[in-house]
Amino acid sequence: MSPTGERVTVPRGTRRFAELRTSELEVLCGAGTVLVQPIAAVEQHGPHLPLSTDLEVVTALVDAVALERGDELGVLVLPPISYGKSNEHTWAAGTVSLEASTLLAVLGDLGRSVARTAARKLAFVNGHGGNSALLQVACRDIHLATGLETFLLHPSLPADQGGPGHAVELGMGVHAGLGETSLLLYLRPELVDMSEARRNVPEELAANRWVRIGGPVSFGWTSADFGPTGVIGDPTGATAELGKELFEEMVTRLGEQIEEVRSFSFPSA
Amino acid sequence: MSPTGERVTVPRGTRRFAELRTSELEVLCGAGTVLVQPIAAVEQHGPHLPLSTDLEVVTALVDAVALERGDELGVLVLPPISYGKSNEHTWAAGTVSLEASTLLAVLGDLGRSVARTAARKLAFVNGHGGNSALLQVACRDIHLATGLETFLLHPSLPADQGGPGHAVELGMGVHAGLGETSLLLYLRPELVDMSEARRNVPEELAANRWVRIGGPVSFGWTSADFGPTGVIGDPTGATAELGKELFEEMVTRLGEQIEEVRSFSFPSA
Amino acid sequence: MSPTGERVTVPRGTRRFAELRTSELEVLCGAGTVLVQPIAAVEQHGPHLPLSTDLEVVTALVDAVALERGDELGVLVLPPISYGKSNEHTWAAGTVSLEASTLLAVLGDLGRSVARTAARKLAFVNGHGGNSALLQVACRDIHLATGLETFLLHPSLPADQGGPGHAVELGMGVHAGLGETSLLLYLRPELVDMSEARRNVPEELAANRWVRIGGPVSFGWTSADFGPTGVIGDPTGATAELGKELFEEMVTRLGEQIEEVRSFSFPSA
Amino acid sequence: MSPTGERVTVPRGTRRFAELRTSELEVLCGAGTVLVQPIAAVEQHGPHLPLSTDLEVVTALVDAVALERGDELGVLVLPPISYGKSNEHTWAAGTVSLEASTLLAVLGDLGRSVARTAARKLAFVNGHGGNSALLQVACRDIHLATGLETFLLHPSLPADQGGPGHAVELGMGVHAGLGETSLLLYLRPELVDMSEARRNVPEELAANRWVRIGGPVSFGWTSADFGPTGVIGDPTGATAELGKELFEEMVTRLGEQIEEVRSFSFPSA
Amino acid sequence: MSPTGERVTVPRGTRRFAELRTSELEVLCGAGTVLVQPIAAVEQHGPHLPLSTDLEVVTALVDAVALERGDELGVLVLPPISYGKSNEHTWAAGTVSLEASTLLAVLGDLGRSVARTAARKLAFVNGHGGNSALLQVACRDIHLATGLETFLLHPSLPADQGGPGHAVELGMGVHAGLGETSLLLYLRPELVDMSEARRNVPEELAANRWVRIGGPVSFGWTSADFGPTGVIGDPTGATAELGKELFEEMVTRLGEQIEEVRSFSFPSA
Amino acid sequence: MSPTGERVTVPRGTRRFAELRTSELEVLCGAGTVLVQPIAAVEQHGPHLPLSTDLEVVTALVDAVALERGDELGVLVLPPISYGKSNEHTWAAGTVSLEASTLLAVLGDLGRSVARTAARKLAFVNGHGGNSALLQVACRDIHLATGLETFLLHPSLPADQGGPGHAVELGMGVHAGLGETSLLLYLRPELVDMSEARRNVPEELAANRWVRIGGPVSFGWTSADFGPTGVIGDPTGATAELGKELFEEMVTRLGEQIEEVRSFSFPSA
Repeated sequence: MSPTGERVTVPRGTRRFAELRTSELEVLCGAGTVLVQPIAAVEQHGPHLPLSTDLEVVTALVDAVALERGDELGVLVLPPISYGKSNEHTWAAGTVSLEASTLLAVLGDLGRSVARTAARKLAFVNGHGGNSALLQVACRDIHLATGLETFLLHPSLPADQGGPGHAVELGMGVHAGLGETSLLLYLRPELVDMSEARRNVPEELAANRWVRIGGPVSFGWTSADFGPTGVIGDPTGATAELGKELFEEMVTRLGEQIEEVRSFSFPSA
Repeated sequence: MSPTGERVTVPRGTRRFAELRTSELEVLCGAGTVLVQPIAAVEQHGPHLPLSTDLEVVTALVDAVALERGDELGVLVLPPISYGKSNEHTWAAGTVSLEASTLLAVLGDLGRSVARTAARKLAFVNGHGGNSALLQVACRDIHLATGLETFLLHPSLPADQGGPGHAVELGMGVHAGLGETSLLLYLRPELVDMSEARRNVPEELAANRWVRIGGPVSFGWTSADFGPTGVIGDPTGATAELGKELFEEMVTRLGEQIEEVRSFSFPSA
Repeated sequence: MSPTGERVTVPRGTRRFAELRTSELEVLCGAGTVLVQPIAAVEQHGPHLPLSTDLEVVTALVDAVALERGDELGVLVLPPISYGKSNEHTWAAGTVSLEASTLLAVLGDLGRSVARTAARKLAFVNGHGGNSALLQVACRDIHLATGLETFLLHPSLPADQGGPGHAVELGMGVHAGLGETSLLLYLRPELVDMSEARRNVPEELAANRWVRIGGPVSFGWTSADFGPTGVIGDPTGATAELGKELFEEMVTRLGEQIEEVRSFSFPSA
Repeated sequence: MSPTGERVTVPRGTRRFAELRTSELEVLCGAGTVLVQPIAAVEQHGPHLPLSTDLEVVTALVDAVALERGDELGVLVLPPISYGKSNEHTWAAGTVSLEASTLLAVLGDLGRSVARTAARKLAFVNGHGGNSALLQVACRDIHLATGLETFLLHPSLPADQGGPGHAVELGMGVHAGLGETSLLLYLRPELVDMSEARRNVPEELAANRWVRIGGPVSFGWTSADFGPTGVIGDPTGATAELGKELFEEMVTRLGEQIEEVRSFSFPSA
Repeated sequence: MSPTGERVTVPRGTRRFAELRTSELEVLCGAGTVLVQPIAAVEQHGPHLPLSTDLEVVTALVDAVALERGDELGVLVLPPISYGKSNEHTWAAGTVSLEASTLLAVLGDLGRSVARTAARKLAFVNGHGGNSALLQVACRDIHLATGLETFLLHPSLPADQGGPGHAVELGMGVHAGLGETSLLLYLRPELVDMSEARRNVPEELAANRWVRIGGPVSFGWTSADFGPTGVIGDPTGATAELGKELFEEMVTRLGEQIEEVRSFSFPSA
Repeated sequence: MSPTGERVTVPRGTRRFAELRTSELEVLCGAGTVLVQPIAAVEQHGPHLPLSTDLEVVTALVDAVALERGDELGVLVLPPISYGKSNEHTWAAGTVSLEASTLLAVLGDLGRSVARTAARKLAFVNGHGGNSALLQVACRDIHLATGLETFLLHPSLPADQGGPGHAVELGMGVHAGLGETSLLLYLRPELVDMSEARRNVPEELAANRWVRIGGPVSFGWTSADFGPTGVIGDPTGATAELGKELFEEMVTRLGEQIEEVRSFSFPSA
C-alpha cells in the first residue's frame, strides 16, 4: 500500500523494511503499512534441536507470509530480534538471555524509532514463549508512548493451548516437543538429530487441575525443573510431514491475522 | 503448619504475615508455608464503581480463604500491594499507575525479602489484569534469583476466558462489567451507584476472529480506546445475588488452587 | 471541600480516595483537597511487637484524623504503602525492604498519578524512620516534576527528638521501644507479647557528644549493630494508658498539621 | 595512623588521599584511618554570592581540619565532589544538579571503591543541604553493601537548627543568608558583592507552627517559591568578622566530630 | 577446534553458533573457540543506499570469513545484532536506534550469557561507527565481569582513518560515501540507486586542524548537521569493482585479525 | 566575551565558572562562551606516581590555558570531575571508579544543567583514557538532548598515537609511563618517587600487527593483565625537563584547539 492507500508493489519484490532506501520509505511506508517485527530466542532446545529453533521458525514463517501476501497486506518486515528473554534455559550453555529490563528497553526504543515513520501499526510475531509476557507489556506501553497500534502474534497454537501434540504430550509440549521438532525437520532437517530425541513429559503435573503448564495457575519454572534433557514434550514422533502441515497452517493463519490487524481500528478512533 | 510440617493454629487466629512477631515467625513460617501476596490496582472503574474495585475483591477473597482454610493450608497473607500497573486507565483522573520497571523492581525486592524467611512458596493473587504479564515475568525471575517456588493466581475466570458475562458481553467484559459490578454489589454495595452503570461492549471487535479482547492476537489498548465511559462490558444486569454466587465460587476455587500450590513440587526437585 | 472550596460531606462518610467513583472524584477532589498518603514498613520489631507495627500506627492515626476532621479538612486518604525501605532490618527474617531506587520510583509514579487529579496538595504521613530521607527527596522531586505541593508528616515526636521515652531510653528509643510498644498495647494489644520485651539501649553511644542516634553526626547503622534483639530502646515500661495518651496527642497534632498544610501557600504563589 | 594504629606523619605533610602513591597507601591507609569525602554543590546563591559558595566553605573547612589535626586524627581527604543535588535551584542558570538516582549511583560506586582500601570508616562532610537526605540513605546503603562504617557531618549548625542568624532570619536563613555570606566574606571576599545583598525572609512562614523551614512538617520547595532573588535569609548584616568566628567554630567542631568518629564503634562490634 | 584444541570440522559445515545443538556445543565450543558477534545498525544511508547498509556489509563479511577460514580459526558466529545506537540519524524516518543504556545492557547480558559456554574469547565485528565507543566500554566491562577476553574489530579502515575515499572525501567520507556505496554495489546492487547518489562533503571542516571528523578533537554531531541528504562523503564515484576490491581486502584483513585474536594472550595470563 | 560577542575581562580575573555570581553570569556567559569541563580519575598509577596523576595534569593544563588565553577565548572553566571510569584499575586499592551507567548519568545531568545557561558550547578536557569512549557517547547524546555543541579534547597525544615515549615504549606507554611521569616531575615533583619507577612494556604485544594497545583491534584489558606493577610503559627515563616541554606543548595545543572550538559551526547551522 502506498501512504494514500493504494496497493503498490515494492520494487525488487522486497518486503524487508531495512532493505528500503529512505527515498523508497517515503513512498512505501504509510498509514496503511503493517510493520512486522519478528522476535525469537537463542536457547537450548534439547540435544536434538539447534539453539536457533525459535529463530528458524519465526523467520521462515514471516518470510513466507511476506512472500505470499506481503504486497497485498502492505507488510514491511523488520530484521529479526534474535535474542530474547530465556532465563528459563540459562542453566544450559548456549542460551543467550536478556534481562526483563533490557528487553523492555529494547522494545521501547524500537517503538519510539518506528513511530517516526508514517506507519501506524506495529505487529510483533513472537517465536519464543518466554518473551510473550514482556511483549504484552511493551504493546501497551508503546501504544501509550507513541500512539502506534501494537499487536502480538504467535506462529501457532502451542500444545498447552490445544496445538499439535496436545494429547500425546498431555497438553504440555512447550519446548522442543512434537510441534517444534516437526517444524525443524521440515524447515532445516540438517540441523536436527532425531537419534537424540527423548520424551520428557512432566506427567505428574498433568494430573493437576490448576497448577500445570498451560493451566489456570501459572508458576515460575526453568526447563531444568523438569529434568536434565531441556525438553518439555515428546519429540520422538516428529516428522517432516507433520512439520510441513503445521507450517502451512501457520502461514495461512498468520496471513489472516495480519489481514485483520490491517483493517483493525478502535471504536473510539 | 509448623516448619516441621505439623498443623499449627496461629495464636489469635491471624493468618496475616505482618501481624506476626519475629518470635512467632520462627515457629509458624516454615518450608510448608504458602506466602500469599494480594496485588491489585487503584484505577477508574467507570462512573458506577469505586477506584478500589480490584482491591476490594482481592482482599475480601484472600481474607475469606485465609479465614476458612488458612490454618489447614498453612497460608500466611502479606499486606496487599494496592497500586499496580494501570496505564490503560491513566487518561482518567484517580488512576494510580506504576511503570513496568517500577513494578518489576517492587516485585523483585519483595521476592528477595521473603526469601529470607523459611517459607519456600510465594503465591501472588492478582486482582488486576494489567498486572498479569509482569507478575508472570516476576514469578520466573524471583524463582531464578532466590529459588522460591512462585505462583500466579487470579480471583476468577475473566469474561474473555469464559467467565461470567461471557455471552452478554460477547466475551469482552473485562473492566467494570457484569462480574465486577456484581461482586461489588455483594461486597461493598455502598460504593456502587447502579444509576450510573452503562453498557459499553465493543461489538465491532466481537466479529473479529483473531484480534479481539481475549482473542489469539493481543494488542495494546487503553480503556479510552473503547469510548469515554471507562467501562468495557455490561454492568447493567449486575446483582448482589450474582456477586455472592461468584464470590463463593472464587473462594472455593482459590482454596483448591492454594491446596494444589501447597502440594506442588517439580519433577526434578 | 468541593473543588470550588465549599465544604462537602462525602456521601457514605468515606474519606478514602480509592473508595470514590470517578464521578464522585470530580466533585470531591479539587484544589482545596489534601491527599494523604500513609506509608509504613513491614519489618522486625523485636520479639514482642508485630512486623506490622509501623503500619498499625500510621493507619490507625490517619483513619482517626479522617474520621474526626476529614470533612472539615478536605482530606482524602490514599491506600497505605505497606512496604518501605527497611534494609536496617533485613538481617531478620520477616522484614520486607525496597531498594532506595525502587521506593523513589514508586513515589515518583505516585506523584505523577495523583497530579492528574484536581488536588494540588499531597501529604505523606510516614510511620517508619527509614523512609524519611527518601520521602524528603521525593517531596522536592514531585514538586518540581508536577507542581504539586508536597508535605512530609510524622505521627509523633521520636525519642531521639524529645518524644516519649526520651529520658529512660537516653533519647535513643527509636525502634520497638517505649513509645511504639505503648501504642501497640493500646491499638492492637492482641499482637503484643510483653513477656518478650527487653531493654536494649546503646548506653555507650549516649555518652557521645556528636555521634549518637539523633545526634548532629548521623551514621549508617542496622539494628543488628546494637545487639541481637532488634530493639533499640526500652519497651519494658510500656502501658496501654501511655499508648492511649500518645495516640490522642498524635491525632490532635496531625489534625493541626494538616490544617496548616491546607492553608499553606508559598510566598511567591 | 599506620594500619597497625601507630601515629604516622604523612610524608610531605599531605592528608590528601589522591596525592598518595599506592605504595604509600599500603602504609598510611589502614583500619584506623578516617576517609573524609567533602561534597558540595554548584548552584545559585543569590546575586551577591558565587555559585561555588558551598564548595568554598566545605573545602576550606576540611583543609583546615586536615592541616591542624590530620595526622593526629588519621584523616585522609578525598577530592571534593563538586556537583550535588540542587534541583531546588535549577530555575536559575548556573546551577548544576544531579538527579537523585545519579547521585545515589555516584555515592554507591564511591563506597564500593573505597571499601577496597584498608580503611573502615568513611565520613562525608556535606556543604549543601539538598544533599543531606540522599547522603543519609547512602550512609546506610554503603554500610550494608560493604561493611564500611559511614558518617555524615555538616560544617555548622544551620539557621533552621539554631545556628547563626537564627533570630534575625526567624530561623529560616538557609540559603545565602547571614552565615554563608559572612563565611564567604572571610574566606573569599573577592567573590562577594555586598551591594547586591538583599534580605528575603519568608516571614509568613515563620508564623506557622508546623509547616515552616526547619519545622516538624517538611515540604518540597524550590528557592523560587520564596521570591525572585534566590536568597532565603538575610545577608545584609554579614561581616568577615562573623565569618571568621563561624569558621573557627566550625573547624573546632569538625575536628571534635572526626575525633569521635574515629573512636566510634558499634555495641555489637 | 575442539575444546581440547584439536581442529574439528563442524558437521554440516556450519560455523553458526545458533545452529548448533547443545550436544554439539559441548564438543565444538571450547577454550580455543573465538565467538564472533556481528553488530550493525538500521539507519538512513542517504537516498541511494538501504537502511540495512551496515548490516549487509558486516554479515557478508563475517559469513565470508567463516566460510573461508572458520574451521581453521575455530570461529563460531553469533546471530547479528541488527539494531545499534544510531541517534545521529534519528531525524530521518527509518532509523532504529537504541539508547546508550539499552545497548550497554544488551551487551552486558550477552557477555554474561556467552561466558556460560566454554569459549573464552568474544570478538565483536562492528559495522556501524556509532556503536564503537559503547563496544569499547562493553569490551572492558565484560572482561571484568566474566573474565572473557573481548575484542572489537571493524570491517575496514574508515575514510577518516585513511581508508578508501580518503582523498576525494577529504578524509571525512564516514557515511554512505565512496566505500560503503561501492561495497553495496558489489554485495547487493539491487538495493542501490546510483541516480540518487550525491556528494556531500563538509569542506569547511576539512580546513580545520583539530575539530574535524576524524580529527584530534571529536564532537557531538548528527548527520543532519551536515545538510539534508544524510550523506557524509562522496558516493558518486562508487563502483562494484571498487566494492569487490574493498570487500576482498576486508575478508583477508578480518581473517588475519581473528587469527591474531585467537593466539592472543595477556602477559600476566 | 559578553553575550553580545564583545570581549570582556572577567572581574577579578577569574575564568572559573563556579566563582561567578548569577548576576555576573548573565553578563559573562553568553552564546560566545566555551564552557570547559575538566574530567580525570583517581586511580593507581604504579608505585611511583600519585592516584591523582590524571587530575593534576588536566587541572594544571586547563588552569594554564584559562590564565593565558581565557579572556581572549571566552572560556569559563567548570570545577573538575575528579572521579571517572577506572575499572581497569580497581584491582588496586586506592582506585575510585564509577560504573559506565553512573558516569553517563552524571554527564547527562551536567549537560542538561549547563544548557540552562546562555552558553552554547561545552568542551570536555579529559585526562583519563578510560573516560574517552563514554565522553564520546555523552558528546553526541548531550548534543541531541539539548542542542549544545559538544567537544572532546585531550591534553596530549598519547604514546599509542605517536606521543612522547612512542619509540622507547613501543607505542604502548599508556599508563604511568614516560610522558605522565615527566609531567608530574614538572608539575608536582614532591608527589613522585622515581626510586619506585620500573619499566613494564608488554613487548609481546608490540609484535602483534592488529591486536595491540593502540592497534586496529582494541580489546578489554585491566592494568593487572600486564603484570603486577600497574604501569604500562617505561617511566624510568622521565625528567622534569621533558615534562616541562610536554606541558608547554599541551598548553599551546589546547589553546589552539579551544580557539577552533570557539569558531566552529556546523555546515547546516
